Amino acid sequence: MKITLEKPEKLYHFYPTTVALVAAKYRDKENAMAAAWHTALSTDPPLYGVALSPKRLTYELIKEAREFSVNFLLFEQLDKLHGMGKVSGRDVDKFSKFPLGKDEGVRIDSPIIREAYASYECLLEDEIDCGDHTLFVGRIVIIHYEEDFFQEGRLRTDLVKPILYLGSDNYITTREESHIKLA
Amino acid sequence: MKITLEKPEKLYHFYPTTVALVAAKYRDKENAMAAAWHTALSTDPPLYGVALSPKRLTYELIKEAREFSVNFLLFEQLDKLHGMGKVSGRDVDKFSKFPLGKDEGVRIDSPIIREAYASYECLLEDEIDCGDHTLFVGRIVIIHYEEDFFQEGRLRTDLVKPILYLGSDNYITTREESHIKLA
Repeated sequence: MKITLEKPEKLYHFYPTTVALVAAKYRDKENAMAAAWHTALSTDPPLYGVALSPKRLTYELIKEAREFSVNFLLFEQLDKLHGMGKVSGRDVDKFSKFPLGKDEGVRIDSPIIREAYASYECLLEDEIDCGDHTLFVGRIVIIHYEEDFFQEGRLRTDLVKPILYLGSDNYITTREESHIKLA
Repeated sequence: MKITLEKPEKLYHFYPTTVALVAAKYRDKENAMAAAWHTALSTDPPLYGVALSPKRLTYELIKEAREFSVNFLLFEQLDKLHGMGKVSGRDVDKFSKFPLGKDEGVRIDSPIIREAYASYECLLEDEIDCGDHTLFVGRIVIIHYEEDFFQEGRLRTDLVKPILYLGSDNYITTREESHIKLA
């Protein structure tokens, strides 16, 4: 039966989506957080948007640093990503607590997650207040990706299982047998 | 081997994501299109964003109508969704060509896709130019969803296979055996 609601309790209906591990550094402080509200916004110039709550430390760091990285991890690395989302960088140094490698960016000082199969280096282009979140619009200046995991720009789901978020700490990944290319 | 690029040809790295079937009606003209660039933006108030190219008829309709619906379809309905993305509403009446049912909205005049397992009725709150796309920010005023397909707000992936987009006309769905709830 179809239900009609005026006010949602949770905005989970549009899931699943990949999870973006968003990282930023300002002065000596760096942090990373898992974000499910993210999307590309423009191809030329390449723009990427992440919507973060002002409560988050990463929000503050991006405000100051005017840059961030967006990283995508394998389903096998879910524990690390999920753990990063369950604690605050105000209480612990997440990079010490969760053994994820960091690489230096080419154009930004914010950490690039070494284990990520794809990462975007973003310069903050705009910040748009949207209700209880802020959409940070980043200009992608550098892309890192595992060459073997992509074919014609597309993720090789026969080799790579992405992390997909369903809401309330539930995750899932893809079924390769269902992969279809339509004309 | 990890590749570093300065300029992306395609922004597919962050896929897979569900596909939003965005529909709008202005006066006698109505249309729907498949959009992969979409995300929630705020819980309270509930805001949803869809990034559309100004080339699209649906873009024009939303600009005039100041409203739109966002609909999510089953993997079994992929042919209809994909077909809708391959033609322009300028050339054909998509609702005649692809047999998808339409329901009237409660708060908007734009069509609600009958077969969708979840639909948002949105009033246009803001439009933000982002490079070659415009982000339409809609305030969700009504949510429709199939009660049986959701549990505590989350999609029941044991019953429902969502459509996930990979880029370049490639689609995939979820593997229930991989579903995990973390603490």
